[in-house]
Amino acid sequence: MARERQLSRQPSSRLTRRSLLGGAAVTGAATLVGAGAGTAAAATRDVDVAIVGGGLAGLTAARDLVAAGKSVVVLEARDRVGGRVVNLKLTNGGFTEGGGEFIGPTQDRIKALADSLGVATFTTYNSGKNLLYKDGKKTAYATDGLLGSVPPIDVAGLANAAVVQAELDDMAAQVPVDAPWTAAKADEWDKQTFESWLNANAVIPSAKFLFDVACTSIFSAQPRELSLLYVLFYIAAAGNESNAGTLERLTETANGAQESRFVGGSQQVPIKLAAALGSRVVLSAPVRSITLSGSKYLVTADGLTVTARRVVVALPPPLAARITYDPLLPADRDQLSQRLPMGSIGKAIAVYDTPFWRADGLNGQVVSDTGIVRSTFDNSPPDASYGALMGFIEADEMRAFDASTADEVKAAVLKDYATYFGDKAKSPTSFVLQRWDNEGFSRGGPVAYAPPGVLTEYGPALRRPADGIHWAGTETSTYWNGYMDGAVRSGERVAKEVLAAL
Amino acid sequence: MARERQLSRQPSSRLTRRSLLGGAAVTGAATLVGAGAGTAAAATRDVDVAIVGGGLAGLTAARDLVAAGKSVVVLEARDRVGGRVVNLKLTNGGFTEGGGEFIGPTQDRIKALADSLGVATFTTYNSGKNLLYKDGKKTAYATDGLLGSVPPIDVAGLANAAVVQAELDDMAAQVPVDAPWTAAKADEWDKQTFESWLNANAVIPSAKFLFDVACTSIFSAQPRELSLLYVLFYIAAAGNESNAGTLERLTETANGAQESRFVGGSQQVPIKLAAALGSRVVLSAPVRSITLSGSKYLVTADGLTVTARRVVVALPPPLAARITYDPLLPADRDQLSQRLPMGSIGKAIAVYDTPFWRADGLNGQVVSDTGIVRSTFDNSPPDASYGALMGFIEADEMRAFDASTADEVKAAVLKDYATYFGDKAKSPTSFVLQRWDNEGFSRGGPVAYAPPGVLTEYGPALRRPADGIHWAGTETSTYWNGYMDGAVRSGERVAKEVLAAL
Repeated sequence: MARERQLSRQPSSRLTRRSLLGGAAVTGAATLVGAGAGTAAAATRDVDVAIVGGGLAGLTAARDLVAAGKSVVVLEARDRVGGRVVNLKLTNGGFTEGGGEFIGPTQDRIKALADSLGVATFTTYNSGKNLLYKDGKKTAYATDGLLGSVPPIDVAGLANAAVVQAELDDMAAQVPVDAPWTAAKADEWDKQTFESWLNANAVIPSAKFLFDVACTSIFSAQPRELSLLYVLFYIAAAGNESNAGTLERLTETANGAQESRFVGGSQQVPIKLAAALGSRVVLSAPVRSITLSGSKYLVTADGLTVTARRVVVALPPPLAARITYDPLLPADRDQLSQRLPMGSIGKAIAVYDTPFWRADGLNGQVVSDTGIVRSTFDNSPPDASYGALMGFIEADEMRAFDASTADEVKAAVLKDYATYFGDKAKSPTSFVLQRWDNEGFSRGGPVAYAPPGVLTEYGPALRRPADGIHWAGTETSTYWNGYMDGAVRSGERVAKEVLAAL
Repeated sequence: MARERQLSRQPSSRLTRRSLLGGAAVTGAATLVGAGAGTAAAATRDVDVAIVGGGLAGLTAARDLVAAGKSVVVLEARDRVGGRVVNLKLTNGGFTEGGGEFIGPTQDRIKALADSLGVATFTTYNSGKNLLYKDGKKTAYATDGLLGSVPPIDVAGLANAAVVQAELDDMAAQVPVDAPWTAAKADEWDKQTFESWLNANAVIPSAKFLFDVACTSIFSAQPRELSLLYVLFYIAAAGNESNAGTLERLTETANGAQESRFVGGSQQVPIKLAAALGSRVVLSAPVRSITLSGSKYLVTADGLTVTARRVVVALPPPLAARITYDPLLPADRDQLSQRLPMGSIGKAIAVYDTPFWRADGLNGQVVSDTGIVRSTFDNSPPDASYGALMGFIEADEMRAFDASTADEVKAAVLKDYATYFGDKAKSPTSFVLQRWDNEGFSRGGPVAYAPPGVLTEYGPALRRPADGIHWAGTETSTYWNGYMDGAVRSGERVAKEVLAAL
């Protein structure tokens, strides 16, 4: 009944108010309805396709649909575009990145998109040695051997780790990225946690340590939270149509997923994409309900209601579940969205006058078994006009600090940075913190992952449209699931899907 | 901003419209706002405590709060009370139960509540033999030996099953029901699926079969979906303060959780509870947002807005996550609600002129390794004036049929009933189906369960209030979690918690 009331609120003359489309500026819902609109009818638009979510997936879909001559509106809940990709301002006038920032080989679609928008890339700083901090001891090690980074652990551990890594890649090669649930051993792999499998295979403690760190670095989740099948799928997805995914491509900097960064920051890509879409992108417009009304969908956001022939939901599944659908979504789609939780992640960036660790022969990359930050990168700008240390806060470590104040987190982070890089690290000129678990329109990150049983039971519901509602977002991608590239791929795929249906 | 607009819609004179409280009839939001209210301001109430959800938990909390002199309103999304407890009408004038129906020893709080409302119990029909249908063969077996039901499987399987059952009970005895995450072996038990543990322990296939059936019967989830620690907690919770929980009490009819039923159907309990609360209970009022405004919460449902000093959310966690909270919930509470999915369950009840299986010496209870229904009960009324076979459709079986038509499900169910009880079962006089996965205000059942890692990482967020928002529902109960008794216990506990805070 509430749905009907909402319908009746819109004078029909406003349902076709297409004059709002086009134009140059990204608009906010508030500016459309005006301040104090109160009980007045919400603004309306009528388009071919309503897109829920102004991250890379939604914006890419919008670009392709507009290119094909379709009218679209992108409803973004936040007051900015980019979703899990965001530039953060620094007090020194620079900026850093609070979300996805790296791009690497086989990530072709984000690369093509960035190229088309004139956003260039530069190589992640990777000269000098890595640091391993383990059992209270700091060891520097080279990253440029034939085998990539080989941490200085015991020989037995290294041998065990090499076997385990090869085994994971071999198993991953048996997982079809478009339907992991059809792998011959899907049932066997989906009924156990990654932890159970590691316990049986990474039997040398130092080897187990390496995979634990790899797991939290990649998923921001502990091995006990993940289905083995899901981990294998994620490895298989770390490639493209002509290069099989490997675990090494996920973990490495050179030749890996952390190889390069974007000039101007990764959010330049969605910002430029949105700018080209103009007022089709509406900010501060969280979508509350999607209701089929006759042959059209009524998409109700705060301050704006859109009627559309098709809807693209480009949100992580757990957030897509928070929209009220009428008619209800199919049971498998709803239950899928109950079963893909977001990881727990934050990023902490400390800024210094110079990247002083470089002078010590260090590349700023740490792997650690302790502290709130257990993995770091040199996030300085390409001209090194100042230094920036970026640390990931992941899984158990993030959870332990989710309710802490920003100052408490900062103190814990700087303590770790000092342990890794010396006392100079204690006194940054500025410090920024991005806490994804505490963001209402993310509630975790970097990706919604699958516990045991989910892919085999609900996998087919990941991309199957619910009548006129189509699904996008990096979680729906066959390649580079969980990455910016996967988001772009999902946007391109869903646009084709919708065009075929319109 | 939307929140502020909603606030501004309510004339302050209506915020204290207490005249709506009291009275005898349960009200519907629609009757309060009138038909076609359209853009008019929503009705409002001001109370001490707003309770979200009119199931046993919410209604019990309301009863206790009213008894303590507090004003309450219960906002129920459906057009009926009872939540996962519902009577279904039969064409013969009788009724059956589509949700929770059984009550057994140590379920003291639902018993006390039913007693107080004059709802009597009767013993579940349990005379005659059980049926085991396995490997295409049907075997009847007695249920009344000293050891309870002992299915006719091979001796090695029985021996293995006895050891596994004892081991599960022993481990469960080490799990504190109020804080499973503090068990000495919590980490070890929470990092593996129940399936992984069964594979290592229920090594005889017939024994594994019994635990698989027990698992789907109890949780409507497969062993691969569940954390071992969660299963142990659930066993520990199958008791009370003076009787430790056991697996047998979960699975058995006599002396177990299926021992008795309610005269008039289980929904009599919430219906009578709601009747006593009168117009404090508002139906068809799904809550969309809970917003702190000064020192009060604004609870916005379709057609009715309530202001309250405290809020009780008595919903399963995945549904509680679909409400918009402002301020945001703490990260751990939100992420918990992303990690407790509902099982997959339906119930199918076929009605016959007589309970004809009784004449064949059968009690109507089946354990099967095949078909859509793998577990049945004799759901005939106490006077046996007609016969009723109730079958559970659970986990993989329910998922396989979630998108099927009711006729397709009926055909599959009756095929199974005929296999188990003969051709007479093919021709019921009526047939009712309750499909919880397809219910918008349940989206699965009977309970939201925990995959690996969830209890150890998020357990403390289960009951911890978020400022003035308190949590109830059977998922928050320390005893009989997942059962009607747990719902009642959670309502009693939350009422005390709120009274202490008011």
